[in-house]
Amino acid sequence: MREISNLEKLANFFSNMPGIGIKTAYKLAFHILKLNEKEVTDFTDAILNTHKNTKKCLICQNYTENKICSICSDEKRDKSVICVVESSKDVISFERTNAFFGRYHVLHGLISPFNGIGPKQLSIKELVLNIKNNSEIKEVILATSPTDEGETTAMFIAKVLKPFNVKISRLAYGISVGSEIQYADSMTILKAIENRNEI
Amino acid sequence: MREISNLEKLANFFSNMPGIGIKTAYKLAFHILKLNEKEVTDFTDAILNTHKNTKKCLICQNYTENKICSICSDEKRDKSVICVVESSKDVISFERTNAFFGRYHVLHGLISPFNGIGPKQLSIKELVLNIKNNSEIKEVILATSPTDEGETTAMFIAKVLKPFNVKISRLAYGISVGSEIQYADSMTILKAIENRNEI
Repeated sequence: MREISNLEKLANFFSNMPGIGIKTAYKLAFHILKLNEKEVTDFTDAILNTHKNTKKCLICQNYTENKICSICSDEKRDKSVICVVESSKDVISFERTNAFFGRYHVLHGLISPFNGIGPKQLSIKELVLNIKNNSEIKEVILATSPTDEGETTAMFIAKVLKPFNVKISRLAYGISVGSEIQYADSMTILKAIENRNEI
Repeated sequence: MREISNLEKLANFFSNMPGIGIKTAYKLAFHILKLNEKEVTDFTDAILNTHKNTKKCLICQNYTENKICSICSDEKRDKSVICVVESSKDVISFERTNAFFGRYHVLHGLISPFNGIGPKQLSIKELVLNIKNNSEIKEVILATSPTDEGETTAMFIAKVLKPFNVKISRLAYGISVGSEIQYADSMTILKAIENRNEI
């Protein structure tokens, strides 16, 4: 009986975004109504400009507005270590530590047969090419999440990189810093015991 | 040293929206990158159209794209009961119960001296005018949240409406004190309507 209003359409758009339920979607749609005209066009311009100008770095595949991203083109970064991550979000997390000075390679996904995602849909060939063409690379840290898909992807890449003269490492497993042991799952505790360090 | 990228700008826009933290903001910005061109323009069009075409109903002040909203222009709705709510979000919550067949009045806020919001900034005068001009209205349900601001607003409106020949009621405390109506489940809202009390 009732036609779908623009407001409902907009709320539907928001609710299709990751982690946004229908109530939050309406909250965001109502927020748009409270903006003034300039704020709204600034927002839509930001969406359109980001979509238009953001591409993947020719080396590491991370999102950038240039051919080569700011990390790959930073001569002060250590060229000998490549940290392989699932997504650009992970690059942000690593950068926030201010403790990693190597470079990255962004896979843009994980191997997930259940979701029909195989190695060819990830930027693994670009990683291989980079290592092949770049004798400065001495180590590849496989920094995918310790989930089934993350493990599978790490194991696959480790196998692919075997013929190359690079050290291959994996992020350490353990209990998160600042968390309580009682909330850690058994597998994590098991790994933490296995990887215990002498002090 | 580094200029702010479009992606960061877009993430900042998202993080200024209610309930969106910086991590979710980046998640949403990365989601935009994965859309195709049509999906992006559909989204920005939805934002612009919603902002441009949505106005307030001349009677109840709820958001609509017409002069009179679909509820106020629905002849099947009971004209004798007006449910006064803080925001359009609350109308959605009430409609979801499928148990209220009267009409609404949207205040667009609550009296909040701490935030500099007085009765004049709310659509109270429109409510008074509506009651004055409309002898069919027999009851006004004050359905603001059972918070300090919601109570203050309800008491204020009750006082303003005293001279008029209408029954004034308040939602029953089926809704947990201190919580917001938009987060209440349909059954709770239903009970609160059934148990409304005259004040």
